[in-house]
Amino acid sequence: MSDRKAELSQLIEAQGNKVRSLKSQKAEKAAIDAEVAVLKGLKQELAILEGVAGGDKAKKVAKSAFTLKTAKGTKDYNDKDMAIREKVFSTITSVFKKHGAVTIDTPVFELKEILSGKYGEDSKLIYDLADQGGEECSLRYDLTVPFARFLAMNGKEYQNFKRYHIAKVYRRDQPAMTKGRMREFYQCDFDIAGTYDAMIPDAEILRILCEALTNLDIGKFTVKLNHRKILDGIFQVCGVPEDNIRPISSAVDKLDKLPWADVKKEMTEEKGLAPEVADKIGEYVKLKGGRDLLERLLADENLTKNTSALAGLQDMELLFDYLDAFEITEKMSFDLSLARGLDYYTGIIYEAVTEKSAPPKPVEGAVAKPKKSTDEFDESTVGVGSVAAGGRYDNLVGMFSGLNKKGEPNLKIPCVGVSIGVERVFSILMAKQKPEAIKSNETEVYVIAVGDGLLTERMQIASDLWKADVKAAFLFKKKPKLDKQWAACEKDQIPFAVIIGRDELDRGEIRIKDMRSKDESQGGGVTYKRDDMVKILKEKIAQL
Amino acid sequence: MSDRKAELSQLIEAQGNKVRSLKSQKAEKAAIDAEVAVLKGLKQELAILEGVAGGDKAKKVAKSAFTLKTAKGTKDYNDKDMAIREKVFSTITSVFKKHGAVTIDTPVFELKEILSGKYGEDSKLIYDLADQGGEECSLRYDLTVPFARFLAMNGKEYQNFKRYHIAKVYRRDQPAMTKGRMREFYQCDFDIAGTYDAMIPDAEILRILCEALTNLDIGKFTVKLNHRKILDGIFQVCGVPEDNIRPISSAVDKLDKLPWADVKKEMTEEKGLAPEVADKIGEYVKLKGGRDLLERLLADENLTKNTSALAGLQDMELLFDYLDAFEITEKMSFDLSLARGLDYYTGIIYEAVTEKSAPPKPVEGAVAKPKKSTDEFDESTVGVGSVAAGGRYDNLVGMFSGLNKKGEPNLKIPCVGVSIGVERVFSILMAKQKPEAIKSNETEVYVIAVGDGLLTERMQIASDLWKADVKAAFLFKKKPKLDKQWAACEKDQIPFAVIIGRDELDRGEIRIKDMRSKDESQGGGVTYKRDDMVKILKEKIAQL
Repeated sequence: MSDRKAELSQLIEAQGNKVRSLKSQKAEKAAIDAEVAVLKGLKQELAILEGVAGGDKAKKVAKSAFTLKTAKGTKDYNDKDMAIREKVFSTITSVFKKHGAVTIDTPVFELKEILSGKYGEDSKLIYDLADQGGEECSLRYDLTVPFARFLAMNGKEYQNFKRYHIAKVYRRDQPAMTKGRMREFYQCDFDIAGTYDAMIPDAEILRILCEALTNLDIGKFTVKLNHRKILDGIFQVCGVPEDNIRPISSAVDKLDKLPWADVKKEMTEEKGLAPEVADKIGEYVKLKGGRDLLERLLADENLTKNTSALAGLQDMELLFDYLDAFEITEKMSFDLSLARGLDYYTGIIYEAVTEKSAPPKPVEGAVAKPKKSTDEFDESTVGVGSVAAGGRYDNLVGMFSGLNKKGEPNLKIPCVGVSIGVERVFSILMAKQKPEAIKSNETEVYVIAVGDGLLTERMQIASDLWKADVKAAFLFKKKPKLDKQWAACEKDQIPFAVIIGRDELDRGEIRIKDMRSKDESQGGGVTYKRDDMVKILKEKIAQL
Repeated sequence: MSDRKAELSQLIEAQGNKVRSLKSQKAEKAAIDAEVAVLKGLKQELAILEGVAGGDKAKKVAKSAFTLKTAKGTKDYNDKDMAIREKVFSTITSVFKKHGAVTIDTPVFELKEILSGKYGEDSKLIYDLADQGGEECSLRYDLTVPFARFLAMNGKEYQNFKRYHIAKVYRRDQPAMTKGRMREFYQCDFDIAGTYDAMIPDAEILRILCEALTNLDIGKFTVKLNHRKILDGIFQVCGVPEDNIRPISSAVDKLDKLPWADVKKEMTEEKGLAPEVADKIGEYVKLKGGRDLLERLLADENLTKNTSALAGLQDMELLFDYLDAFEITEKMSFDLSLARGLDYYTGIIYEAVTEKSAPPKPVEGAVAKPKKSTDEFDESTVGVGSVAAGGRYDNLVGMFSGLNKKGEPNLKIPCVGVSIGVERVFSILMAKQKPEAIKSNETEVYVIAVGDGLLTERMQIASDLWKADVKAAFLFKKKPKLDKQWAACEKDQIPFAVIIGRDELDRGEIRIKDMRSKDESQGGGVTYKRDDMVKILKEKIAQL
């Protein structure tokens, strides 16, 4: 590497001159910084090379040059993690595709202004890119805002659109790795965009959610269901002042974690609501049920007089018909305490809870961490709360489309969507199995030589297997020991071994051993003709 | 939305107080900036809401609030793009898995110091994250350095490791969108890490590369092959001074784009090499062939006297035996002009060129843009150059592992790998077909009602199909017009339609139409029993 060291010395000298010259010309700071960064990099590389060569001072530099870790709140996913993740993604993706969905991909960073004003106080959790001269950009915080931006840009072609997107998002939150709250984590969104007749896409989203959760095999689940218009109607009917509706709504949303007495206290003491108004709300938001509850509310003249509540109830009537046709009514719980944090919901809202993810039953007087007000749902944590959530948001795309002369959005694309909390699903599934039991490779056949190595012969056999689309491997040694080959085959949980020896090959024969068989009599495998090997293995693999 | 506006006004006031208070306490700049960002976001949201409501001044704010575009050098991939991309990824992934590979995932950003000193002058193209308090981080520039960092951290468990990684990387280069050079683009890497007998994993990597390129169906290709030790030996034998070997090597690497006279000029005039030394090099690097060339070089006593050259030639001898066993020798071109830019290669190097991607034949005296010295290969551009490249790099992991008391790396994991230029593959494939011919959804059956809408009946039929894993859809209208339903079915290129009518349903019948059939006699489809519908459709789909 001494040639590289000489080159580096030259480059460092030249780069130093460049930096000095830029400084003397009073160039822009960003330009100087960029060249200084290059200089530092070259110096560091040289220090490392010299460290490897042995210079004492350089060694120290090289030793301290790296902190061997991933950035705070991020982690590597190893092969076992990825095997589980890929299974989850493919299960979910199959369901989405069964319902005609396509996928799109948006950049990992957006112009900063695209994200501004979308996340309320949580805006401070947005990661910005450094100003290196050029546009101000930020890492995406969720997949919904980029989707709305995409629709606003391309909406004319995408007025009828079922899209899913599984990708990483970024939040500069305090990481809690033990709880699984990360700064980089996956989201999995499915949305239907377009102007359709009421509640039809909404019902299909719920059906998709039920199919996905069933296929993921994470245990029993319930989908809590409510409607923003019914909630708003209830608040109006009970006498909540208009400007206190969202704060009161967010207090109601805590009913799954706090007992009613605490929620009432928040409403009256913190948010200044009259106690009798709070009590009236309490009568409603404690209600849950199915179509029976809907009938009861439709019979409530106080409520049906209210335009907003009536519209919501009529939507729910339609929805229940459609849920029946889709055979998922039994999974639903019409729950008037479900309020959801995000402001942009305009119609039905829902949240799926599994038995494993349900929060502990609220205890009177207990203190719970309040939910974040603007978070879709806290997907960055696992182990508590919901495994999926969503709702209808008819006005978000309009926020990006600009306004016409009347002050209305140029483009209005109503949307309904669901976000599956894949990180929680992963941790539920990971907890169900031991890491050593997870097979991360897909290899079906291991080629083993008895005797003198037979490397090119093993290669030819592997080559024949690959040609027939059989997943095959062998040990990368010229003359491997037999026990090392068996050990490698067992470690990777490969189901079949092809065993070759010089004499057998000369007779046109090989042996095949079923590695899962406990039958001692076929310890060395069963002998077949070399020419039949591929056919027989294909049959055995088909039966796996 | 007036409730949200009221809430925003309150929040803005409170946030303003918070910022003022922090400033008066002389809090850290990063802390103040974070709160100011929140304040700006809240103000912007309010402006937008007021814009929607119609206030003239607010409207102006709202109109200017968004530049509706993706960040410079990035783009959205729509459903058609993604359909092609997913096909490419799954083709490549199948080949990797056939060879026993697993995948890992590393974070999109790394500690800045991990990337420093790895990319020479190209370090200035690294994207940094803003300093928002905490660690200094940068977006990954490639997948190789994070992989080496992963191995250095987890290497003891991963001494024998075939891993692939398909993910986006980031380079703050001048984008050339028309040429397809992006700031965000995919890389697709396959590497084998571990200490094995010489050239065995190297041969399997070449086999994998050949299988992948064949299956991708991008036309004929050739894999150019060379060995760093042979090249270094040639340079030594011809009399290149030690500290000029890398610069001369990088001049040689331009021989695929420049005629020999220009390369010689660079060697002598720019790099100060004696003309007779350049001529000696010229005799060697113009050579290409197969095993015949290897024999010729092995007979060259001048060369075999050189330790480095001899070691390289012995490697090549082994490799040719293994390539024969893997039946890929005919795809190879042993090409002494292949030098590759990256410094870290230590053994064989290779580059795949398709007929479509081959650069135009060099013309004497023509000026070509020189290759970047440190780029794996310029994967961010498409249309010219190689479609895949790689080589053996035995010392990179050691750069991360720290040094022991003797000044040697704590952990040495030799690696050999290949990077497939998926962005080039995409553009080759996209150029082969019209966008409208790409089917991005996978829907197999469209449910159509004749007559009175029959919404819940269509829903029930879809539900039955979904239950049987048939991909089905229908129009989200209560009473859709017949022509709208046909149009939707045709637009999405759905192969089968189930047609239902009131009378037929009452008789327990439905009709199935093969949308691809030109047989006019079955224009309205063929009648079947409702109970047989799923079975018949499954049979028809299996024949697709």
